Amino acid sequence: MTHRAFGVGESVASVHRDRLRRAAAEAADRSLDALLITPSTDYLYLLGYRAPAMERLTCLVIPAEGDPTLVLPRLEEPLARHELGTLADEVELVAWDETEDPIRVVQGLVGGARRVGVQDQMWARFALRLRAALDPAELVEAGPSMSALRSVKTDEEISRLRAAAEAADDAMRTIAAEPLSGRTEAEVSARIRELLLAAGHQEAGFAIVASGPNAASPHHTAGDRRIEVGDAIVLDIGGVRDGYCSDTSRTAFVGEPEPEFLVLYEVLREAQRAACEAVRPGVPAAEIDAVARDIITEAGYGEAFIHRTGHGIGLETHEEPYLVSSNPTPLVAGNAFSIEPGIYIRDQWGARIEDIVICTDAGGERLNTSSTELLVVD
Amino acid sequence: MTHRAFGVGESVASVHRDRLRRAAAEAADRSLDALLITPSTDYLYLLGYRAPAMERLTCLVIPAEGDPTLVLPRLEEPLARHELGTLADEVELVAWDETEDPIRVVQGLVGGARRVGVQDQMWARFALRLRAALDPAELVEAGPSMSALRSVKTDEEISRLRAAAEAADDAMRTIAAEPLSGRTEAEVSARIRELLLAAGHQEAGFAIVASGPNAASPHHTAGDRRIEVGDAIVLDIGGVRDGYCSDTSRTAFVGEPEPEFLVLYEVLREAQRAACEAVRPGVPAAEIDAVARDIITEAGYGEAFIHRTGHGIGLETHEEPYLVSSNPTPLVAGNAFSIEPGIYIRDQWGARIEDIVICTDAGGERLNTSSTELLVVD
Repeated sequence: MTHRAFGVGESVASVHRDRLRRAAAEAADRSLDALLITPSTDYLYLLGYRAPAMERLTCLVIPAEGDPTLVLPRLEEPLARHELGTLADEVELVAWDETEDPIRVVQGLVGGARRVGVQDQMWARFALRLRAALDPAELVEAGPSMSALRSVKTDEEISRLRAAAEAADDAMRTIAAEPLSGRTEAEVSARIRELLLAAGHQEAGFAIVASGPNAASPHHTAGDRRIEVGDAIVLDIGGVRDGYCSDTSRTAFVGEPEPEFLVLYEVLREAQRAACEAVRPGVPAAEIDAVARDIITEAGYGEAFIHRTGHGIGLETHEEPYLVSSNPTPLVAGNAFSIEPGIYIRDQWGARIEDIVICTDAGGERLNTSSTELLVVD
Repeated sequence: MTHRAFGVGESVASVHRDRLRRAAAEAADRSLDALLITPSTDYLYLLGYRAPAMERLTCLVIPAEGDPTLVLPRLEEPLARHELGTLADEVELVAWDETEDPIRVVQGLVGGARRVGVQDQMWARFALRLRAALDPAELVEAGPSMSALRSVKTDEEISRLRAAAEAADDAMRTIAAEPLSGRTEAEVSARIRELLLAAGHQEAGFAIVASGPNAASPHHTAGDRRIEVGDAIVLDIGGVRDGYCSDTSRTAFVGEPEPEFLVLYEVLREAQRAACEAVRPGVPAAEIDAVARDIITEAGYGEAFIHRTGHGIGLETHEEPYLVSSNPTPLVAGNAFSIEPGIYIRDQWGARIEDIVICTDAGGERLNTSSTELLVVD
């Protein structure tokens, strides 16, 4: 399965050529002699196609100086050559045979290196073998080099994120207009997936429907529980549209909302709004988390907000920057992330509101434009 | 998304309790103080549910002596507790909060260890951080310990592999009875996925349709090429049924097969049959590869057989044992693997025949029972 990050009408190869050059420059800036990028979203971002992560090593070697080399199993070569198109003019392909040890091939390319960055999701088996083969070179995480590139979105990337967000908003609006009581979580979840696809997603990645007490578990997915009057429902939905991810959460209440829940919900809504409004270049990621958390804590729900405030989004649903108290990194224009505080009361109910927000020079711009009011449903 | 390896009517917890004990024993046999198992198929095999591999660390710590501990993000705890059921009585859950460093939590559990096995697909970012935190402990691959367990299938696992193989055979028979010329590879591939699901697969993982010159690329998937008379077509299909994988290949010819192709095909068929017949406990995996390869080489096609002869199969499509010339490990009863030689003539055509075979005390038993004759299609 392949999927292209960029489509018809753009100079696909030139986008990826530029990314490869900038990755090499990032490596040099961090005193790395090379980056080793195995199949992953980083690989897709750099080369424009998705290769399978498997027991046969595929590894893009990007030296800080000089041209990149793609080491890959012989039987993947025709497909890679096809996918790379004219980019293959600048990336040398080195195919290894079934009886060769690909670790030796990589070793031959980066022998003598002192510090090498390995892709964050590289399989440990390869990282351990490379470490032994490249000894005494130090292996470090390539994550910061790749995040430096990927966390700053281009206009084209932002427009794809916007289209994905709009499609998810459409799906959310439609499901909230349907009667939900009497249906199971799983049935509603399946319906949301249909709606995501109908709205132009190629993949309906997830459709969390957490009703009643299940809403108190942030990562409950969707089960056999039948939705009933008096339930709060956390709906957290998203997928992939033209390569870029959507991810939005709204909270619904079946029937007349209980006053106690409305109090909780308005605290959450204020926290989410304040966090969105605090976004601007230079603000530490941790501060956005603090803005939301302080409001929730002051209202007495601090213990019930059991996760970070948000995560970056792009080709992956979760990527840098993470909005968490341990992340002092300042936001920069072009960052794209979720802002999604939640309040979870065990065995009773829960609520979450989530928008995707872009950091622009003028402040935060919400890509999800639907109302964050509590959805009152039948 | 979760999926259980074992279903209703079995003592789920007792199967997994036993696997955890045997994993600890395997670790001890290899002089490992502990195994660190992050979300992966190994994790599913041991705990019975699939946890997501993500930037928040989840890690099952299995000491060679003592009870296992599951380190996981706080927000995954309710789901894990639900999925583990009574197994949670024996696996201690340690949840970490968003502001904690989970690496320190693992360090606290295995501090003082000298040798620690890390799961093969553990993300490099975690492996590198664990290595620093556990210094001077040596990190080694947990793969051999886990493969020792997983590569020997129980009767229950074999019956699931058989049911998956039969379902894939059904799909293959149906597609071969349909007219293929005039349809695109992608259309035929979509149809095969439908057939796999209709035959009881929960996931239609792949449906390679490689026609004409595309058949010369072993990992071509399915594209816009329209199938025509005179094409050879490699069909390589499979998915997951009740947790276990199917994977079978057959070769078709559209219209009257060309004599030159028939010669090639009969060599391949003889190689595949001979390799199946060579299976028995004690025979090195490499020898099965050699049996197929020697026949193909003697017939003059050696250069055109550009991949190994097979791979183990179970919860994953590709797992141990690999039938490749570099693997001297003797087969044992209960091994399950593909036997799939292929012959690929660039720019012209290709052929592959693949069955899943069980190594039994009485020899090889094919789970795919459909004929390996060339499929002549319209």
